[in-house]
Amino acid sequence: MKVLITTIPFGQVNSEPLDLLDKYGIEYVINPLNRKLQPGELSNLISDFDAVIAGTEEINNEVFERAQNLNFISRVGIGLDSVDLNAAKKHGIRVSYTPDAPAPAVAELTIGLMISLARSIHKSNIDFIEGNWDRYFGYRLAEMNIGIIGVGRIGSRVINHLNGFNPKNVYINDINSPQLKDFGGQVKSCSKDFIYENCDLITLHVPLTSETFNMISIDQLTKMRSHAYIINSSRGGIINEEDLILALESGVIAGAAIDTYEEEPYFGKLSLLNNCINTAHMGSMTVDCRANMEIEATKEVIRFFNMEPLLSEVPEDEYKAQILFGKSK
Amino acid sequence: MKVLITTIPFGQVNSEPLDLLDKYGIEYVINPLNRKLQPGELSNLISDFDAVIAGTEEINNEVFERAQNLNFISRVGIGLDSVDLNAAKKHGIRVSYTPDAPAPAVAELTIGLMISLARSIHKSNIDFIEGNWDRYFGYRLAEMNIGIIGVGRIGSRVINHLNGFNPKNVYINDINSPQLKDFGGQVKSCSKDFIYENCDLITLHVPLTSETFNMISIDQLTKMRSHAYIINSSRGGIINEEDLILALESGVIAGAAIDTYEEEPYFGKLSLLNNCINTAHMGSMTVDCRANMEIEATKEVIRFFNMEPLLSEVPEDEYKAQILFGKSK
Repeated sequence: MKVLITTIPFGQVNSEPLDLLDKYGIEYVINPLNRKLQPGELSNLISDFDAVIAGTEEINNEVFERAQNLNFISRVGIGLDSVDLNAAKKHGIRVSYTPDAPAPAVAELTIGLMISLARSIHKSNIDFIEGNWDRYFGYRLAEMNIGIIGVGRIGSRVINHLNGFNPKNVYINDINSPQLKDFGGQVKSCSKDFIYENCDLITLHVPLTSETFNMISIDQLTKMRSHAYIINSSRGGIINEEDLILALESGVIAGAAIDTYEEEPYFGKLSLLNNCINTAHMGSMTVDCRANMEIEATKEVIRFFNMEPLLSEVPEDEYKAQILFGKSK
Repeated sequence: MKVLITTIPFGQVNSEPLDLLDKYGIEYVINPLNRKLQPGELSNLISDFDAVIAGTEEINNEVFERAQNLNFISRVGIGLDSVDLNAAKKHGIRVSYTPDAPAPAVAELTIGLMISLARSIHKSNIDFIEGNWDRYFGYRLAEMNIGIIGVGRIGSRVINHLNGFNPKNVYINDINSPQLKDFGGQVKSCSKDFIYENCDLITLHVPLTSETFNMISIDQLTKMRSHAYIINSSRGGIINEEDLILALESGVIAGAAIDTYEEEPYFGKLSLLNNCINTAHMGSMTVDCRANMEIEATKEVIRFFNMEPLLSEVPEDEYKAQILFGKSK
């Protein structure tokens, strides 16, 4: 029984996942390149392994063709855009994930990005480094129209955090029409266009699918207010990066906070725009959430090897969604 | 009737204060140096004026001796450490302030600084500018022991915001023993030493007095955990800046977020420490709070000139406190 652990870092904040693998006599190799793998690199590594504890690297048919022994993928995290689920099924490979574990960490980071943007914390901090003293006016969350697109595990938590700030207006849009009664009176369901046109601060909490790929492009950005801020802590690709750069450079919108990129690591032009806060895909990177994700993903591998029932196998809906909408890109 | 407006910017986010002065035929001059005045500079400017709409500049006996016409000070903000109240009284000068207006903005900034620190938003953002991609582990507010010293207008609001994050433990210390029942079960009253020794994140919301001047010095910093963060969005001088620099450089604590400095504008060494987030005294700088502060301070001047009762004259307690504890420095 051999597991390839591609997601990195792994076992760093909490050694329990590695201890568990040792305890069950499961051999493992941690990603020797110590960065996100390309499909070709993964293909070259994978032939020996029975299971993968996976990050966000692309796992597609090319990989499966080379993975003679592979029969289980345990995704550390929630997004499934990186895994070709139906190709996996065709090769008899089952897939589990950890959909609940990252949500608390992503939701908190999102609130931090909201306040950083609204109060220019990043700008002022850089001013100090450059020896400048400038005082920026900002906005309180309580005074803004806040738009949330995607109200699942993470979006719901963002709303709950916001409640502590008594916001005047929270506008939400979700494909599944969540029960509004749970969120209190100031939360109103509306169209995406309404959010683009009326919100001062917009945050995205949708999965990456062919439907959400480039959901925010120049057409949507130009609908937004010139003082609007946008946050993407969900998945790279949902905002068209070239269009966002254009919008930030030309003042179509006021600012952005971006935690996820189409290609990671990211070294593109957003890094140099002072009205863009950039963070290195750290949404789920709290000690507690990361440990929970790694432990859950590892326990699922152990269950699989022990032929016990899996607890968080990817549901059939996700396979259908990939057939319906195609893979993300 | 002539008013000197020393606080800057003024009338910028909302012209109502200037419109009000015009409407009541009150002549005004806005700080011609466009920065915080030194006592000597203020002394040279003040002789002509009947009232000052003041910022955080020092207004002491030296100023009063030169201010032949001055009989009213209207402080834009809450801190009174800059005004020698008893010297003002001796010269027959009354003083009002705006104690409620800044609190909502300061409390929100504090939460933003908490999450920025706990999640290394600032570090990651600077990494991008420098062309690096590093992913930092962080902590969720919900998982930390949070210590709040000073639970008045601002500290109470910080607690209310935190409630939206379901924190496990919030430890508070206040000179006035606030009613704990208002804050829910996870909020516990305790000594300052308990907070220094047990909290992961400590935030200060006390006024600057001789009692709180350098309240956090090397003795207190060395009591803190090596992974602890400290935030000062109250007043410069409450943390000893030299000691803080030492503690941050040597790893005695993990990080700090500082919005207020003993001398402002600040160009000191904290600016260059990558484990310190610096912002330029922007706690109250939201459009809504700043407008409220300026409007309230202006209305108070108009009331004074019209011989109407003042609504927010500084209470007698504050005068006594300055006698008891001396002026701040």
